Amino acid sequence: MIKITLPDGSVKEFAKGTTPMDVAKSISEGLARNVISAAFNGTTVETETELTTDGSLILYTWNDKEGKKAFWHSTSHVMAQVLEEQFPGIKLTLGPAIDNGFYYDVDFGDQKITDADFKKIEDRVLEVSREKHEFKMRPVSKAEALEVYKNNEYKTELISNLEDGTITFCDHANFFDLCRGGHIPNTGIIKAMKIMSVAGAYWRGDEKNKQLTRVYGVSFPKQKDLTEYLELLEEAKRRDHRKLGKELELFAFSQKVGQGLPLWLPRGAALRDRLEQFLKKAQKKAGYEQVVTPHIGQKELYVTSGHYAKYGADSFQPIHTPAEGEEFLLKPMNCPHHCEIYNNKPWSYKDLPKRYAEFGTVYRYEQSGELHGLTRVRGFTQDDAHIFCTPDQLDSEFKKVIDLVLYVFGSLGFENFTAQVSLRDQENRDKYIGSDENWEKAESAIISAASDKGLNYVIEYGEAAFYGPKLDFMVKDALGRQWQLGTIQVDYNLPERFELTYKGSDNELHRPVMIHRAPFGSMERFIAILLEHTAGNFPLWLMPEQAIILSLSEKYENYAKKVLELLENHEIRALIDNRNETIGKKIREAEVQKMPFMLIVGEEEEKNGTISVRRHGQEGKGNISVTIEEFATIVNEEIGKTLKTFEV
Amino acid sequence: MIKITLPDGSVKEFAKGTTPMDVAKSISEGLARNVISAAFNGTTVETETELTTDGSLILYTWNDKEGKKAFWHSTSHVMAQVLEEQFPGIKLTLGPAIDNGFYYDVDFGDQKITDADFKKIEDRVLEVSREKHEFKMRPVSKAEALEVYKNNEYKTELISNLEDGTITFCDHANFFDLCRGGHIPNTGIIKAMKIMSVAGAYWRGDEKNKQLTRVYGVSFPKQKDLTEYLELLEEAKRRDHRKLGKELELFAFSQKVGQGLPLWLPRGAALRDRLEQFLKKAQKKAGYEQVVTPHIGQKELYVTSGHYAKYGADSFQPIHTPAEGEEFLLKPMNCPHHCEIYNNKPWSYKDLPKRYAEFGTVYRYEQSGELHGLTRVRGFTQDDAHIFCTPDQLDSEFKKVIDLVLYVFGSLGFENFTAQVSLRDQENRDKYIGSDENWEKAESAIISAASDKGLNYVIEYGEAAFYGPKLDFMVKDALGRQWQLGTIQVDYNLPERFELTYKGSDNELHRPVMIHRAPFGSMERFIAILLEHTAGNFPLWLMPEQAIILSLSEKYENYAKKVLELLENHEIRALIDNRNETIGKKIREAEVQKMPFMLIVGEEEEKNGTISVRRHGQEGKGNISVTIEEFATIVNEEIGKTLKTFEV
Repeated sequence: MIKITLPDGSVKEFAKGTTPMDVAKSISEGLARNVISAAFNGTTVETETELTTDGSLILYTWNDKEGKKAFWHSTSHVMAQVLEEQFPGIKLTLGPAIDNGFYYDVDFGDQKITDADFKKIEDRVLEVSREKHEFKMRPVSKAEALEVYKNNEYKTELISNLEDGTITFCDHANFFDLCRGGHIPNTGIIKAMKIMSVAGAYWRGDEKNKQLTRVYGVSFPKQKDLTEYLELLEEAKRRDHRKLGKELELFAFSQKVGQGLPLWLPRGAALRDRLEQFLKKAQKKAGYEQVVTPHIGQKELYVTSGHYAKYGADSFQPIHTPAEGEEFLLKPMNCPHHCEIYNNKPWSYKDLPKRYAEFGTVYRYEQSGELHGLTRVRGFTQDDAHIFCTPDQLDSEFKKVIDLVLYVFGSLGFENFTAQVSLRDQENRDKYIGSDENWEKAESAIISAASDKGLNYVIEYGEAAFYGPKLDFMVKDALGRQWQLGTIQVDYNLPERFELTYKGSDNELHRPVMIHRAPFGSMERFIAILLEHTAGNFPLWLMPEQAIILSLSEKYENYAKKVLELLENHEIRALIDNRNETIGKKIREAEVQKMPFMLIVGEEEEKNGTISVRRHGQEGKGNISVTIEEFATIVNEEIGKTLKTFEV
Repeated sequence: MIKITLPDGSVKEFAKGTTPMDVAKSISEGLARNVISAAFNGTTVETETELTTDGSLILYTWNDKEGKKAFWHSTSHVMAQVLEEQFPGIKLTLGPAIDNGFYYDVDFGDQKITDADFKKIEDRVLEVSREKHEFKMRPVSKAEALEVYKNNEYKTELISNLEDGTITFCDHANFFDLCRGGHIPNTGIIKAMKIMSVAGAYWRGDEKNKQLTRVYGVSFPKQKDLTEYLELLEEAKRRDHRKLGKELELFAFSQKVGQGLPLWLPRGAALRDRLEQFLKKAQKKAGYEQVVTPHIGQKELYVTSGHYAKYGADSFQPIHTPAEGEEFLLKPMNCPHHCEIYNNKPWSYKDLPKRYAEFGTVYRYEQSGELHGLTRVRGFTQDDAHIFCTPDQLDSEFKKVIDLVLYVFGSLGFENFTAQVSLRDQENRDKYIGSDENWEKAESAIISAASDKGLNYVIEYGEAAFYGPKLDFMVKDALGRQWQLGTIQVDYNLPERFELTYKGSDNELHRPVMIHRAPFGSMERFIAILLEHTAGNFPLWLMPEQAIILSLSEKYENYAKKVLELLENHEIRALIDNRNETIGKKIREAEVQKMPFMLIVGEEEEKNGTISVRRHGQEGKGNISVTIEEFATIVNEEIGKTLKTFEV
C-alpha cells in the first residue's frame, strides 16, 4: 500500500500501482470525468501513470492552468500527426503548450502551409480526436531514439542532449513523438480546435539557425468555448489601445524619435494631465508634497543605490561628457533622487512622515522586440511617491496608501481586483536586509492593513523583494484579463545605502523606513489598460471632450458658440461641429470619436434656449430636450457616480 | 584738413592732427569735461591720439560701457604701479577691464597679498591718481620690449606673439606697461577705488600653467558711486537666488545627483507648478495645445534637425544601448520632437496654425566652472511652444505671442523691459535659409508687430539666426540689472529639414513657417531672476503661502484650524504656526520666511470670529482686525492688481 496526500491535506491509502485516475474515481465519478491531468510530488504525470511510492497528488481539470496545459499539449500531438499526414516528409521539432493554446515548430522543407490549409487540418484533428485515442508513454533507449529520428536533425539534436534512460516517446493512434509526458486521458475530450496563425521562428530561437514554420493552435473541450474565445479576441482587437490611441489621436510613435518613446498628442496629453491632476488633488489631501527631479543622475548615484550593479549592463549605457570625465545615467527610478531630497536637511521624528510625490519620467532599455504600444515602452512616467516614516508609522501609512489606491481604482471604474501580499521566505530569513524585528513589524503591518481594508488578498511567502515586503494589486478588465497595477513596497535597503536618518524622541539618530508606491504604476501602461478596459469610453470626468455640439446647419453657429460658452462656465469640456454636413454624418462621426454627449442645436433649440441631448451608444433612444443648466446637472450627476471626493 | 563724421551723422572738418579731445571741445566745454575715451573708425583710441585721416569718431563718457572700460583699464595701470611699489619684485602679466571693474593677474613669487593689504593699496592708488598723471602711448621695437621684460616670462611670452612695429607701452607717472591703449585723459578723475577680492587664476586660463594671483578692483569718478555700488552688491548678495532658494526651501543641489541638476523641494515645486498653471491657462485661451514628448531621441533625429552637427561634440555624448547598436541623445531642444508630432498626420491650411506647447525639460552640457545656481544649469525646463502656420498668418501669430509675453511680464511685476529685433545682414543675404520673399514677410511682420504693440525696441541688422529673424525681450530687475527673458523666433529651417507640409487652398503642398517662443525662457532661470527681482516677495498670487496663522498660544489651535479651513474655502494658501513660542518670535520667523500676511489669533479673535492681520515688512504699522471674508477681499484685491485675466 502507498499513502497519497491530497491538496486538502487528507491522506489516503491505495494499492501500489494505483493511478491518478483511480484516485479521482475513489473520490467521485464526477471528478473522474473532469480530471485531465495530474502532478505527483510536484512533477507532471499522466492520469494513467502507476504510482509506486508515498507522495502528494494534485488532480487537474480544465479549470486549472495545468489542466489547460495538458489539454493543449495533447492537441499539439494530434495536430503534429495530422500535419505529417497532410504534408508528408516534413520534420517535426518542438510543440509546447503556451498561455493561450499551443504551437508546433515544423520544417516544411519545400512545402508551404497557408491559411487555405487550416480548415482541412482542423477538421482532421477533430476527426482523429473523436476516435478517443489514449496517450501512452513509452521508454526508449538513446540509441533507438537516435535511429528512429536519424533523418530529423532537430530531434537528433534534442535527443543528443538527453541522458540515456530518461528518454520517452508518446504514442497515440499511429503517431509517436519524443515527449516528456503530461497528457489528457484520451483525445475524445478535444471538441473544438482552431489554427490561429503561422509565423516564422528560428530553431531554438537563434537567428543563426534555420527558420522553421510555427503553427499556432488552440483547442477547447466545448465548441462554445472556442466561439467565446474568438469573440473575446475580436473584442480585444477592437479595444487594442494602439488602435484606439491612433483613432482617438491620443499618442503616436515616430521612427525618427525612436521606438518605445511615445509622443503624447494634444488629446492624449490632456487626458494624462487630467489623470495627474486627479491624483495630485487626492495626494495633496493625503499629505503628499510634490517634488521635481532631473531625468539623469551621476553614475555614482546608482552605484550608491545598487541599481547600477544590478541593471547597469542591461540598461541605457552611461552618458559621457566632452570633458572632465563625468558619467551620467538616464534615471531608471526616482527613488535615489527622492532620497537625496530627504537628505537635504536633518529631520526629527516630529517631522515624519515625509511623503514626496513626483510624476517622474524614467527610462529603461527594452529590446525592440519586447516593445508593445504603451504597455512596454522605453520611457514612461511613474505616479511615484516615497514615504519616509518611522517603523511605528508603517502600519498607518500603509493603510492610508491602500485607501488612496482603492480611491483611484474606484474613480476609474476598476471594480474587480485582487491583492497579493509578498512576504519573506520563512526558511531563509538571512537572504533579506533589515532586522528581524522590522520585518515582522512590516509584514504584520501589511497583513493587518490588507485585512482591515477588506482586500481580497493572497499571501505568497518568498515573493518579497530582498529589501522589504510588498502588496501588489491585480485588476481584471472588462475582457476578464488580469493586469498588475498599483504596488506598495516597504524598503529597508535604500535608507541604509543613502544613510538616511532622523532624530528620535531619544535624541539618537535612527533610520527611517521607506515606502515606494504607485497607484497607476505608470501613466503609459495605465492609460493603455484603461483604453482596453473602457474601449475608449472613459469615465465621464476623464473624457477629452464631454460633449460635442452638432449644429443642424451653419445658420446656428452663433447659438452653438453661445452653448459652448455656457458649457465652459459649467466647466464642461465641449467642441462644436459646425461643418456643412448632414446631422446623420455628424452623429456617426461623434459616435466613432466616443463623444459622451451629442448636443444637437437647430431652430427650435435656439428659439427655446435648449439643446437636444443624445447619449453615446444609445442609438435607439430618442433625444431629450433640456436647458444647459439641466444638462450640467445630468453631467455632474453622472460624474459624481464614479468620481467622489477623496476623504482622508 | 580731415573730415570727421560724428554718431549723429554730421560731418565736420578739422585740421589734420586734431585729437578726439579737440573735437569734444569744439562741440562743447561740458562734453570735453566728460569725455574719457574715444573710438575712431571702430578702434579704441586715446583722447589725445592725433587723427590724420577722414573717419567716424565716437566720444565716450562714464555713462558709456566703453567709457567705463577705459576708466577701469586705466585704474588697472595705477593699481599695477602701486602693487610693484608695495611688493617689489613681483611679475605683472595682464590687467584688463571687465564688466564690473578690472583685474590684474600677478605672479607674487614668494610674497602674498591679503585682505589686510587692500586699504594701503587703495589709499596709494588714490594718492597717485590725485597727481593727475596723463597716459602716454609709446611705440617700442620688439627687441627693446623683450629686453625690458627679460626677467618677466609672462610679458616675454606676450611680446613674442606680437608683430614688430605694432608694440606699444603706456607710460604714466614713473610706471610703464605693455599696452594696446584705450585710457582716460589723466588719473585725476579716479576718485574712488576698491580692491574687491583676490583669487587664484592660471596663466592664460590653462590649469597646466602656473597659478597667479588675480587682484580684482573697481573704481569710480565719485565716492558716492562706489558707496552705491557696494550697497547694490550687498543687496544683490541678500537677494542672491542661491541664498534665498535655500532659505525659502525652494530647491537644492546634491553632489551625488550631480552639479547643475537642481532638485525642486516641495515649496519650489509648488511655485513652479503655479507658474506653469498660470501660463497653461493663458496659453489655452490663446489656442495652444499641450503635448508631452520624451527626454531623449535617436541621434538621427538631431542629425536631421542639424543640432548634432552643430552642438554634438560639445554636448552630453550619445547614449548607447546594450544591443542593436542604437544611439540616443538627451534632448537639448524640444523642436525636433514637436516637428515629428506635426508630421504625425497631414494638415490642410484650414487646420493651421497648430500651436504645440510643452514644459519640456532639456539637457545641455555646461563646463562645471560655468554652472551658477539656477541661471546656468545642465538640465532645465523650457516653457516651450512651436507654432506652425502659413506665411500669411505670421503677422497675426507674432502679435498674439507678444500679447502673451507682455501678459506674463505684467503678471509677474516686470514693468521695465526693452526689445531687440534681430534681422538679416542686408549685405549678405545669401547667408540665410529661406526665400527672400518669406524673409521680407517675416521681418516686416516682426517690426510691425513690435510697433503696433508699442514695444520699446531696437533693430539690430545681422543679428538674426541663419534660419530666421527674432525678437528678444530684456527685462530690468529691481537692482537695475538687465536679463534676457522671453524670445520669439521665426524658423524656415526646421520645416525644410523635417519636410513639414500642409495642403494650401490651391491643393498643393506648402511648407509651414515655425515660430519658437518661450515667455519665461526656462523655469529655472526665470525663477532665479524673479527671486532676485522680488527678493522672494513674489506677487501674492504666486507665493508658496499667502498667509500664516499665528496662534497667541496653543489654546487657540482649534480656532486656528477653523480659520485655515475658511481660508482654504477662499482658495487662500495658508499655514498654522501653533508652536509653544512667543508671538514675537513667530512674527520674526514669519517675516524671514517672507509670509505675505501674518494672521494672529487669540482670545479676542476667537470670540469675535476675526483675525488680526499684519502685512509682511510693515513693522511699524498696527494690525487690523477683520473677518475672514474681509481678509479674502483684501487678498483678492491685491492679487487682482498684478494678475489679470488673459484676454485674447
